[in-house]
Amino acid sequence: MANDQTAHQEAVETVRKLIKGIEIAMLTTVTQEGLVSRPMKTQEVEFDGDLWFLTKEETDKYTQLKQHPSVNVSYVGNSYVSVRGTAEVVNDRAKIDQFWNAAYAKFLHTTSDDPSLVLIKVKAEAAEYWETGNLVKMVKRMFSQLTGKETEAELNKTVKL
Amino acid sequence: MANDQTAHQEAVETVRKLIKGIEIAMLTTVTQEGLVSRPMKTQEVEFDGDLWFLTKEETDKYTQLKQHPSVNVSYVGNSYVSVRGTAEVVNDRAKIDQFWNAAYAKFLHTTSDDPSLVLIKVKAEAAEYWETGNLVKMVKRMFSQLTGKETEAELNKTVKL
Repeated sequence: MANDQTAHQEAVETVRKLIKGIEIAMLTTVTQEGLVSRPMKTQEVEFDGDLWFLTKEETDKYTQLKQHPSVNVSYVGNSYVSVRGTAEVVNDRAKIDQFWNAAYAKFLHTTSDDPSLVLIKVKAEAAEYWETGNLVKMVKRMFSQLTGKETEAELNKTVKL
Repeated sequence: MANDQTAHQEAVETVRKLIKGIEIAMLTTVTQEGLVSRPMKTQEVEFDGDLWFLTKEETDKYTQLKQHPSVNVSYVGNSYVSVRGTAEVVNDRAKIDQFWNAAYAKFLHTTSDDPSLVLIKVKAEAAEYWETGNLVKMVKRMFSQLTGKETEAELNKTVKL
């Protein structure tokens, strides 16, 4: 169990480093018509296993997530990162204040005291990444909180939680 | 009908310009465990309504697409583009030769005569994009081959097909 925890911590740290500084992620959700994605401002608070996004209650995302909580969050930077997770809408003013910064005001065209603001919490279940110096060498790792299983044939390395 | 065709052409041209030159897209698929995405080398041949990717038959993508053809393709460049579509695996040697270039050899670690190569054809059903000079002004458009309906509350403009 101690080893599992260490591995989990290492996996979280790996993802934390990979996504650090990437200001926008693409959040993909399931709709009645198919899969849609949209850019989301990323959190400044460091990743600890959950990803947090701010949105407004009246958006389509809000409705979609209630019906279909499975999401993917992808990051394009020096690496390509795919995070598979389950989303939950959280209405917590203290947390909104904790996450709020000026960039959200621009991105969401609102102020921090807007009562329609809610948080989207994505519990990361698995993450994979591709390091892409020149796209010749691809390194791909995965961690899974739920299964610990490899599910992708082309995986090179797996970090279990 | 003529107007619909013109609008469709305009929508296709808009997406063509937006994704031109972006070498890697994130392809999101549905798996038993949730939504996963991975970087895919984009086509050099210009977009005409279908997106084409090369992969190998033995990959997990191949199996996933057979079971769940709904996909999303997202592009991160000067704009953020989300393409909702339906994927189909196409085994067509002539088309593979048409799309093949040296970049695929590096990306897929193989040669063009590899018999396991197949094409993934994504029929674009809707596209949305966000122009992001400074992320303050976001312009978002959508086109839908199937419904022509707006489905996202925050849409600014819609281009019907």
